[in-house]
Amino acid sequence: MEAKRTVGMVLFDGFELLDVFGPLEFFGRYPEQFEILMLAEGMGAIRSAQGPAAMADIDLANCLPLDILIVPGGRGTRREVYNESLIAELRRLAENAQYVTSVCTGAGLLAKAGLLDGKRATTNKLAYAWATSQGPKVYWVPEARWVEDGNVFTSAGVSAGMDMALALIAKILGIETAREAAVYTEYIWNEDPSSDPFAHLAGLVD
Amino acid sequence: MEAKRTVGMVLFDGFELLDVFGPLEFFGRYPEQFEILMLAEGMGAIRSAQGPAAMADIDLANCLPLDILIVPGGRGTRREVYNESLIAELRRLAENAQYVTSVCTGAGLLAKAGLLDGKRATTNKLAYAWATSQGPKVYWVPEARWVEDGNVFTSAGVSAGMDMALALIAKILGIETAREAAVYTEYIWNEDPSSDPFAHLAGLVD
Repeated sequence: MEAKRTVGMVLFDGFELLDVFGPLEFFGRYPEQFEILMLAEGMGAIRSAQGPAAMADIDLANCLPLDILIVPGGRGTRREVYNESLIAELRRLAENAQYVTSVCTGAGLLAKAGLLDGKRATTNKLAYAWATSQGPKVYWVPEARWVEDGNVFTSAGVSAGMDMALALIAKILGIETAREAAVYTEYIWNEDPSSDPFAHLAGLVD
Repeated sequence: MEAKRTVGMVLFDGFELLDVFGPLEFFGRYPEQFEILMLAEGMGAIRSAQGPAAMADIDLANCLPLDILIVPGGRGTRREVYNESLIAELRRLAENAQYVTSVCTGAGLLAKAGLLDGKRATTNKLAYAWATSQGPKVYWVPEARWVEDGNVFTSAGVSAGMDMALALIAKILGIETAREAAVYTEYIWNEDPSSDPFAHLAGLVD
């Protein structure tokens, strides 16, 4: 039996609620396989873009190497791309992680850290211009629910993070386990990473 | 212009992450229309069933009348149905609320409080026997993504709460606003309350 994997979720003021708690709903279903760590610069309550606050249990600077790093989006990313200490911590944690992932405009933070250079990646379709401008050396994919390139998974906007999280669970624990997690939460999983109705709606593809 | 509506989310130890933060993602998109209040017996960090903790900002006992009451599910509901003070607070808040709603096994708490008596309602399909046993005078609907009966909205399991929240936003702010919220979060909204693949999977209907 494999050791439990740590899943580190990065919080910052103005994080997007569903970017964070959608994926964690699924990882949290398997406490024998995954240990969720809520990280931030400093511990305590961190306010979301929507208002409610979540608790950061571990200071990023004290966080030991993680197995899975998840960086959410939310309007706070517009500020955090200029936060050099956060970007440096993301770089440090990504270096030793088995998987490096982002939801929505969290890809802007990974891009700013250089972690997507030379890779294919995607991000929110309605904040596409801003997020992609953070990574001129990234092969941005406009039409994708999520993109897997090596050990890096990046998802489209907000809700797409749930589909990506299930894909990562499928990768690690098998497709049947991921489908079981979807059924248990009565979630209609979009299993096809290329199925992305929002790229059309946003005018990114014909 | 109408006054801002208060949306009160009830937290308790062992709440389900997505039951809480899925709906709040959508209400939180309209801060001019909705003010989110995070409620619990006592203030401070409340631990979810999945591990991460959220902050309760208001003590239930001090909560003024709400416009919209939301009761989530999660394994903590199994304990809270025996918590008479919580049940009494739900009854008090429901009495004056414009809308009374639940996600997943949160319907078990509303049922225990007698708030669903004589009404049609639904709940989680994989915990159906337990939740429905809390309300012998309720007309339980086995196949429904959510059920609207008067001012009471109850949803099926976990993810169904997001579809119900958008239905409630459609009711209050109009269907175009609800669809806009879905697009903005790249959420594929199941707009049809009778479309429920999980009732079949759970063997509740043929």
